[in-house]
Amino acid sequence: MIAQTPEPPYYAVIFTSVRTAVEDDYQATALRMVELAETMPGYLGHESARNELGITISYWTDKASIRAWKQHAEHQIAQERGNKEWYLAYKTRICLVERDYDQTTYKH
Amino acid sequence: MIAQTPEPPYYAVIFTSVRTAVEDDYQATALRMVELAETMPGYLGHESARNELGITISYWTDKASIRAWKQHAEHQIAQERGNKEWYLAYKTRICLVERDYDQTTYKH
Repeated sequence: MIAQTPEPPYYAVIFTSVRTAVEDDYQATALRMVELAETMPGYLGHESARNELGITISYWTDKASIRAWKQHAEHQIAQERGNKEWYLAYKTRICLVERDYDQTTYKH
Repeated sequence: MIAQTPEPPYYAVIFTSVRTAVEDDYQATALRMVELAETMPGYLGHESARNELGITISYWTDKASIRAWKQHAEHQIAQERGNKEWYLAYKTRICLVERDYDQTTYKH
């Protein structure tokens, strides 16, 4: 689903990745991280898609919330395993969403 | 591929969408738009993935470049068809990338 975010400004964390072939705990951990992120102060929503490239975007009210999430103990363990096992390469971008516009009238 | 972008700051346009079942010209137009975007001043790269949700992110040096791309005549026609035929819903977010970090050592 398209994340229902408030009026800008707010923050986006774009996580782009290429996976290894290692499946051990990957799906379960990914689901658990979404579940956990949803409980964090400042969390606004997330969007995700994967083909050869995976893109996960999480939305946050401010940078302090992003920092707190990055440093969450269980998330740190997952990041460590991501580095070692699940990701061949990744890039994280911290972004200030300045403006947005949409069309969400389901016409069909 | 993960887009090779320069040191921040730069801009990201996050386009999140849900497709209709209409296939007419969609793939060809999507490819053509990437080809065209690559010729635009200020274009830095793009990343794309789609499952139920589609996420396309294009990267730009500045907001003026994003505006010029949005107003490009051929892109305007594509946007119009997107509204009417290809997208059930979408959201566009204009973001200032403040910081990024990566791990792109292919270890496996």
